[in-house]
Amino acid sequence: MALITYLPRNEDGIAAAIGILKQRFGERFQTGQAIRDQHGHTTTWILTQPPDAVVFPTETAEVTEIVKTCADHGVPVIPFGTGTSLEGHVNAPAGGICVDLSQMNQVLAVHAEDLDCVVQPGVTRSQLNTYLRDQGLFFPIDPGADASLGGMAATRASGTNAVRYGTMKDNVLSLEAVMPDGRVIRTASRARKSSAGYDLTRLLVGAEGTLGIITEITLKLHGIPEAMSSATCSFRTVEEACNAVIATIQMGVPVARIELLDTPMVQGMNGYSKLSLPETPLLMLEFHGSETSVAEQAETFGEIAADCGGSDFAWTANAEERTKLWQARHDGYWAALSLRPGAKGISTDVCVPISRLADCVTATQEKTAKLGFIAPIIGHVGDGNFHTLVLVDMEDDNEVARAEGFVSWLNDLAISMDGTCTGEHGIGQGKKPYLKKELGAATDDMAAIKAALDPKGIMNPGKIF
Amino acid sequence: MALITYLPRNEDGIAAAIGILKQRFGERFQTGQAIRDQHGHTTTWILTQPPDAVVFPTETAEVTEIVKTCADHGVPVIPFGTGTSLEGHVNAPAGGICVDLSQMNQVLAVHAEDLDCVVQPGVTRSQLNTYLRDQGLFFPIDPGADASLGGMAATRASGTNAVRYGTMKDNVLSLEAVMPDGRVIRTASRARKSSAGYDLTRLLVGAEGTLGIITEITLKLHGIPEAMSSATCSFRTVEEACNAVIATIQMGVPVARIELLDTPMVQGMNGYSKLSLPETPLLMLEFHGSETSVAEQAETFGEIAADCGGSDFAWTANAEERTKLWQARHDGYWAALSLRPGAKGISTDVCVPISRLADCVTATQEKTAKLGFIAPIIGHVGDGNFHTLVLVDMEDDNEVARAEGFVSWLNDLAISMDGTCTGEHGIGQGKKPYLKKELGAATDDMAAIKAALDPKGIMNPGKIF
Repeated sequence: MALITYLPRNEDGIAAAIGILKQRFGERFQTGQAIRDQHGHTTTWILTQPPDAVVFPTETAEVTEIVKTCADHGVPVIPFGTGTSLEGHVNAPAGGICVDLSQMNQVLAVHAEDLDCVVQPGVTRSQLNTYLRDQGLFFPIDPGADASLGGMAATRASGTNAVRYGTMKDNVLSLEAVMPDGRVIRTASRARKSSAGYDLTRLLVGAEGTLGIITEITLKLHGIPEAMSSATCSFRTVEEACNAVIATIQMGVPVARIELLDTPMVQGMNGYSKLSLPETPLLMLEFHGSETSVAEQAETFGEIAADCGGSDFAWTANAEERTKLWQARHDGYWAALSLRPGAKGISTDVCVPISRLADCVTATQEKTAKLGFIAPIIGHVGDGNFHTLVLVDMEDDNEVARAEGFVSWLNDLAISMDGTCTGEHGIGQGKKPYLKKELGAATDDMAAIKAALDPKGIMNPGKIF
Repeated sequence: MALITYLPRNEDGIAAAIGILKQRFGERFQTGQAIRDQHGHTTTWILTQPPDAVVFPTETAEVTEIVKTCADHGVPVIPFGTGTSLEGHVNAPAGGICVDLSQMNQVLAVHAEDLDCVVQPGVTRSQLNTYLRDQGLFFPIDPGADASLGGMAATRASGTNAVRYGTMKDNVLSLEAVMPDGRVIRTASRARKSSAGYDLTRLLVGAEGTLGIITEITLKLHGIPEAMSSATCSFRTVEEACNAVIATIQMGVPVARIELLDTPMVQGMNGYSKLSLPETPLLMLEFHGSETSVAEQAETFGEIAADCGGSDFAWTANAEERTKLWQARHDGYWAALSLRPGAKGISTDVCVPISRLADCVTATQEKTAKLGFIAPIIGHVGDGNFHTLVLVDMEDDNEVARAEGFVSWLNDLAISMDGTCTGEHGIGQGKKPYLKKELGAATDDMAAIKAALDPKGIMNPGKIF
């Protein structure tokens, strides 16, 4: 809990903004404790710091009004999507107004010929994919939660498909945003590529709401592949599995998903999802393409895996079997928690060059074993990104302290391997000390940009910096 | 020539910096007219504005010294790669010191397992690919010229492979840069993905040297595909060709290259490269993958093309035929110039949503015909990006004025179609008025970032803004 701090509150400003916004938004402006607590709470072990009020705008012009009011009175503005971030991103350490964007949830346009669409920030990824399905299109980025696309853009989210389709950084064409002074900007045209000035799109993607509020997103879409196949393969060690991943990617096999589960994670999944996978490190893969291509990809991977010591290789193009497998993967968080009922999970998020992945995972396993933790590992290994879910009794201060020590140790290890403390979850409050360790002097330039675009410091204060 | 302006010169500061740097760098500091002219001249119709001196650093620490000296004396710093940019990027409208990075041309590391490498900014793309070939790796971004990778990063360059491999934005993992106050920063770790703070990598990529000097680049690499095949197909109209492109991409055929040549361009290539292609709009494609996959991709495209009215479809996996075809494509600039000996070519660079591409190309052809120009078109149509090379007698002021009017008209048209005035060449001096038209209020945020990171305004002044 060491990472939580409170910042000075501007009581007069907050009171003034509340007065104005309450009158303006009526029922769409809430100050009840329950709703405030809910908006400071995320899927995280970090303590809740509720905002003073929550407002529900329905259009960009209303977001502008809110931001201008808060700017006039020097009041913090905290954008909120679905509250599924993991690093205290929606906490309000200086109080302020939470802007819940869930009522801005319209798909505004789908341009099928251009393979793009325009959505409001409150649209969730599953809502979008349901909307698109009839047109044979899909949006590939899939963090574990059914997050909002605005939140996913703000945290530069990714998920299991990133190895093939990239992250939010690669799939946002353009943004509309309300800046800290209330101006509305559009960061780019709808062209697939551009060299037109500074890349404000990529600056706002991953800025965690500290530079403005995203009010509209133009996303790249993809055609639903003609065929998909899935494969699993067991390995004696994590190192063997990682070698298979490296060889697969070097060979240019265009895997859509390639996920590593360590032995405890496979045990958890077997129990939780009623599977009977061999209880050793496992790779789960998915291939997208034509019928011929997905068969060829699966077979090529099978050969590589065998060369690397893999066993029990199986692949299927059967939709039902595929769905069962990936549902189990997406339930990995709950499967992991089931290994220690009552415990909370603290998720790490390091990402290292893939040549260091086996070392990093193995060292992690040794460290958590030494500390006496149950800490299953699941990873987007095509990108070198993995999550350790440390299962902790949050009532036991000593255990919590040890978990914090472990998280710190792992982040330092990843940084020492020329990796990052966060592959996809973001900095928020939880990773602030590590950002400085990771990027040093570059954080001064980030701070200079923050000060230039948000001189009053009202946008989501206490995050990143 | 209307776009060239001069900015106030800081004569005293320039004299002081020249004195200090001359003493420090000796023979690696040049003030001769010929070398200065050469460093203000780019592959462009924009007039030369030479710097006051050219310095050739060999390492980052020397770049820091140069920048600090210039910062102390308020003197412009203009980074220079190979001088192949098209929009006056290396001109010195306020004079100053050109930093020629051609002696920083070492490949510092290749991490084959991680599919990345670290290079100095003066390494050219062909130098890198020659270096990598033995390891079965390649770097895909290929602007027409054999540009330096530092320059390619600075202008967010792309080329014929972008439809599959993306642009420099997608292929730079991390940068080292000397900032305007002389601090050296690293923008990211070597991890494949990251959510660690603001994306300074993407901010510097495309900043055209206005925020700092790139001194080291970590690039993503790709395995040389097991097989490649090429295809050509003729169409009666540009519209039919564009429909085939849209269908191919919607089907998810992972084309590596898909280029459109209009009739005049095909005529030029037939003459210049001794080909006998049907003189109608042409698509040229390349497919990368396994033997099976490239055959399947070519055949799938052939079927789509036939449905769209294509004819004379031919494909080959023969390396010699492939090379001849793509050499002809890369010689397109010279082939186009051969259509009007003695003329200069003014290249446009608009990029529009692909659904608008046929309209945009057709309107362009009609407009240039009406203006009496020979103006062949060649385009990276998978991205909606095309270049019109307007062949102009630069001695004829009236003709030059008409050409300027045409460029302005086309940029406005692309912007009205929700496209951009520049898909890959950048803003430089030539496109400044259009950036404002295209992105409006967002350019204020760009200017705020520029002022925050370069408060003295010394980094490549007179570009972008």
